[in-house]
Amino acid sequence: MLTLDKIYHAAYVLKGVSRITDLLSSSSLKTNTHMYLKTENLQVTGSFKVRGAYYKISQLTENQKKAGVIACSAGNHAQGVALSASKNKIKSVVCMPDGAPISKVEATKNYGAEVILVPGVYDDAYNRAIELQKENGYTFVHPFDDEDVICGQGTIGLEILNQLEDIDAVVVPIGGGGLISGVAFTIKNLKPNIKVYGVQAENAPSMYESIKQKKQITLDSVSTFADGIAVKHPGDNTFKYVNKYVDDVVTVSEDEIAMAILTLMERQKLISEGAGATAVAAVLSNKINVDGKNVVCVVSGGNIDVNILSRVLTRGLKSSGRNVNMQIALEDKPGQLVLVSTIISKCGGNIINVRYERSDLNMPISSCYLTIGMETKNFEHINFIKEKLIEGGLKIVNVI
Amino acid sequence: MLTLDKIYHAAYVLKGVSRITDLLSSSSLKTNTHMYLKTENLQVTGSFKVRGAYYKISQLTENQKKAGVIACSAGNHAQGVALSASKNKIKSVVCMPDGAPISKVEATKNYGAEVILVPGVYDDAYNRAIELQKENGYTFVHPFDDEDVICGQGTIGLEILNQLEDIDAVVVPIGGGGLISGVAFTIKNLKPNIKVYGVQAENAPSMYESIKQKKQITLDSVSTFADGIAVKHPGDNTFKYVNKYVDDVVTVSEDEIAMAILTLMERQKLISEGAGATAVAAVLSNKINVDGKNVVCVVSGGNIDVNILSRVLTRGLKSSGRNVNMQIALEDKPGQLVLVSTIISKCGGNIINVRYERSDLNMPISSCYLTIGMETKNFEHINFIKEKLIEGGLKIVNVI
Repeated sequence: MLTLDKIYHAAYVLKGVSRITDLLSSSSLKTNTHMYLKTENLQVTGSFKVRGAYYKISQLTENQKKAGVIACSAGNHAQGVALSASKNKIKSVVCMPDGAPISKVEATKNYGAEVILVPGVYDDAYNRAIELQKENGYTFVHPFDDEDVICGQGTIGLEILNQLEDIDAVVVPIGGGGLISGVAFTIKNLKPNIKVYGVQAENAPSMYESIKQKKQITLDSVSTFADGIAVKHPGDNTFKYVNKYVDDVVTVSEDEIAMAILTLMERQKLISEGAGATAVAAVLSNKINVDGKNVVCVVSGGNIDVNILSRVLTRGLKSSGRNVNMQIALEDKPGQLVLVSTIISKCGGNIINVRYERSDLNMPISSCYLTIGMETKNFEHINFIKEKLIEGGLKIVNVI
Repeated sequence: MLTLDKIYHAAYVLKGVSRITDLLSSSSLKTNTHMYLKTENLQVTGSFKVRGAYYKISQLTENQKKAGVIACSAGNHAQGVALSASKNKIKSVVCMPDGAPISKVEATKNYGAEVILVPGVYDDAYNRAIELQKENGYTFVHPFDDEDVICGQGTIGLEILNQLEDIDAVVVPIGGGGLISGVAFTIKNLKPNIKVYGVQAENAPSMYESIKQKKQITLDSVSTFADGIAVKHPGDNTFKYVNKYVDDVVTVSEDEIAMAILTLMERQKLISEGAGATAVAAVLSNKINVDGKNVVCVVSGGNIDVNILSRVLTRGLKSSGRNVNMQIALEDKPGQLVLVSTIISKCGGNIINVRYERSDLNMPISSCYLTIGMETKNFEHINFIKEKLIEGGLKIVNVI
């Protein structure tokens, strides 16, 4: 059973291990809303997971510690367990699906775990972990459905209450529900007037649907780039706690998550992963009514693959008019590229790539397509360049 | 004259205005070195500049406040002055060169300044600011060569000493030298055994050269993407303080800065601008010998243009083998694209773009070039894909 006592104890045990992450005030992200960001992306290992894993491991008996621990994770939990085991000077084994990003595998090894890459997906890695646990007498560290783990995550609630006096609402991402269970339990027991909201990806709404249907459901598949919260089935404990302590659960789309990541980067200088940005996404896209309120969003982690981050950036640049491709129909005669590039240069567009194609079936035989990718300032700037090209006698076929 | 008294006073005045930014411990960035990051990129307005600007403005006489202030800047100083003036409820005018990024212009306006876009470069904007200052009796807020501004920046030194007991060295970016003057003065007066190092971009080495030549020099031109420290001429005061209090000044290349930005993003989840990453770049690329030491790097700001950030990311991905273009020579017959894409897919490469060209003069008439851009895991993965394509009978022309 969760008690405040145990959460205070976890906070004591975590001293010098996990960081008391900053609560950054940000009044400019949303009009008429004062947002605060609990920056668990700046936590040791890049996510909050180390709190629960460390507290869990610290509470094992001497015999359990001697046998070591095992976990299954493709992400943040793996790193949290690995670091926590090393700090407690015990052995840890982590089973990961063999498709896990190299960077996460390497990070987990560097924190001191033995990593076993299991062919297949998460469930295969999980099954292998359970086998190994039975064979070797390891303790299995569950990523969310464990009271000690939940107590560790609950220390975030204590910190938030310490860091800010006047809070109307706290918004927390939900995957399996360990983080929100701990935070909601702490906050509702200490300051019951504060609202606690949970957020899931609409492509992985296991807790959202379970709450709605008043029973634990299992999703057939989950498909979100917020891999940290791609969970098919809520835990028994976490389902119970979310039911009891959370005011509402909402969902956000992939695009809303991407825009939140971009906003956190540009405006707050913070890298967040998909899961980590969902609480901010929910507030920015008005899924929760916090007008005129003081709202704390937990930014739960920052371990995002750079390739994905790069795609999020590109999408964000396009959707804010700072990157554009223009396809121009040209007569196939000398001097045309000079004409186009001169106009664009005079307008202050910065060309980053050029493609020249002659053989499109829809075109007259004497014509060709020129596709120019460029950096622009905003949508007005794009229109300005477009107009100048048209004035110069050119035909714009497409603006993407 | 600088005094510790004034710096303590500045810290008092800045309470509730500037953030006491976290000093993040990071032992994993460099083997055998314990690095700490003073995260001024998470400061209000995204850089340390607000400290100096606010303290300067707070010390104006009532009459000076009534007349308002003027500044000239294309970047962080503009935002610092605008916010500081608003908080002091006085008028501010900021002259910016008209090529300044829209995002910085908008941010400066949003903080409450009247922005005047001046055609031309920084020097033109500066001249216009001086004209306006004379016409209207504004006080000019210098970006670095002002004792009150320097005192404001010096509060970073106080915070660092408060946040960490055992420090061997502090590394600070240098543009005009205001930041390092304040920090070095504070640290050398309180703990003279701590080394203080300054870092400039090797493409804008005005203070570096001035110190070496023992006289203030003026560079003809500066060309670095670390725009926050692209300064042609050190200040009279700052030159004097750097001479007196700084142990050494070093320079870093554009590539070293870019790699530091990428490292801070991936490993620390922090966005830094070019200038902001120079101190970290100097340590990571061994420009300063801090082996086995506790070293604090000031990450001075995070206001980087997203287009530039996107380029830094792409370069970083390529240089770490996580993004590659392969050019393949194909016979011009059906089924070739199936063959290539099947092999790549089986090897776990993720294709992101494809270009197919038939008309290269160096090729036999029955052949064509296929260029495939893909996401990969690392250089071994790239080689693995390459070998499998060769085994499949394909000819790799180029790997970029």
